[in-house]
Amino acid sequence: MILDGKKLADKILSNLRISQLKLAVILVGDNPSSKLYVSKKKQACEKYGIEFELFKFDSNINQEDLEKKIKSIDATGIVIQLPLPNNIDTERILNLISANKDVEGFVSDNKSPIVCVVEEFLKEYDISLDNKKILVVGKGRLVGNPIAKWLESKGLDYTIVDQSTKDISQELLKADVIISGAGKKNLIQNIKNKAVVIDFGPDVNFEKVKDKASYITPPVGGTGPMTIACLLKNLSELKN
Amino acid sequence: MILDGKKLADKILSNLRISQLKLAVILVGDNPSSKLYVSKKKQACEKYGIEFELFKFDSNINQEDLEKKIKSIDATGIVIQLPLPNNIDTERILNLISANKDVEGFVSDNKSPIVCVVEEFLKEYDISLDNKKILVVGKGRLVGNPIAKWLESKGLDYTIVDQSTKDISQELLKADVIISGAGKKNLIQNIKNKAVVIDFGPDVNFEKVKDKASYITPPVGGTGPMTIACLLKNLSELKN
Repeated sequence: MILDGKKLADKILSNLRISQLKLAVILVGDNPSSKLYVSKKKQACEKYGIEFELFKFDSNINQEDLEKKIKSIDATGIVIQLPLPNNIDTERILNLISANKDVEGFVSDNKSPIVCVVEEFLKEYDISLDNKKILVVGKGRLVGNPIAKWLESKGLDYTIVDQSTKDISQELLKADVIISGAGKKNLIQNIKNKAVVIDFGPDVNFEKVKDKASYITPPVGGTGPMTIACLLKNLSELKN
Repeated sequence: MILDGKKLADKILSNLRISQLKLAVILVGDNPSSKLYVSKKKQACEKYGIEFELFKFDSNINQEDLEKKIKSIDATGIVIQLPLPNNIDTERILNLISANKDVEGFVSDNKSPIVCVVEEFLKEYDISLDNKKILVVGKGRLVGNPIAKWLESKGLDYTIVDQSTKDISQELLKADVIISGAGKKNLIQNIKNKAVVIDFGPDVNFEKVKDKASYITPPVGGTGPMTIACLLKNLSELKN
């Protein structure tokens, strides 16, 4: 039997996936924050030689057309930039993404970039969560939900609050660690002394709480670049 | 303390090393085989988006100048294309390559691409070396030496022959597995029935032995593309 070196070499090389990465981003409508996030992703891809393609749709696109377009996308990783317009069934759209392209961990067991950001910060700055009162602010799909799942998987107790919580200021004053992603500016104006604050919101009034915090993410150069880095890390680790 | 997301993001992204790979090849003199091997490496790098730079020197370059040039090379992986001219101290030149750039495993514990090729073939075709008579043909730096070391590390018995061996044809007829890298055309004209033949030489007269072999690498599309694939695999796995 002939040992086929050509075929096996191609297999090995395609597994290296060097510079074969391609991120596709689906943007529907004109949300200014979404456009900003998309441009940041594009910049990072360009910087690191990753192919980037933006699929931009009008907010009045219908469900069927959007689904058809998404199914036809050829990329190694796909981001559906949220939020989608109200006329679109977000759950159905997200479920079109197969696990091997799910860089955001929405529809698979892939790690959420947000969880990765928190883990990396804790590791880098040698911050432990053991025996800390942990507060998660917001229950959204992007931040609160994956962080809560992650804390559960680590067997850590935590409190989670959202807009239905009557008085979150009481919880904020008790928390040793605050992980926030409510998307509500100036929601957090006071914290416990020496608290650790990781803000994806941006929810924190940085100037008001920065001197009380032992560790805090700044509004610029904090969770933003880290979220992009973790997204690209996920992209590079997908097994396509 | 400010959690510096910019700095940590850069650290994470630089560890991804996507499309930041660069292979530098040092070629001294006009050896036609060396030129061919270099062009194959260049082609593969271009195909997979890896930066490639060739440093070509006349065969009359002196040791000092060559060392100075090599020390100034900025790349993530370096190949010294062997053989070097006789007036050059090969050992000294190879030792200029630091472990984190040693894609060929000459001066570090990095795995030799040749060993990788053999491992990948054995794995792909489900060939076991257990209780086989293994013959290594050639004691060179590129093939025989790393293969012998690898077999030792796996606790496998083997016989190794080179030009000083009186009658290698006897050994060839006894071997269940032949791994050959003597660089002597038509050295191997007969083998044991059902032997496995992996030829880096090219030493094997393929037409004469192909029907007796159970598995055999062809002269084209055999170990050649595999060696390049394993070299690039090494390059992508170096921690720069």
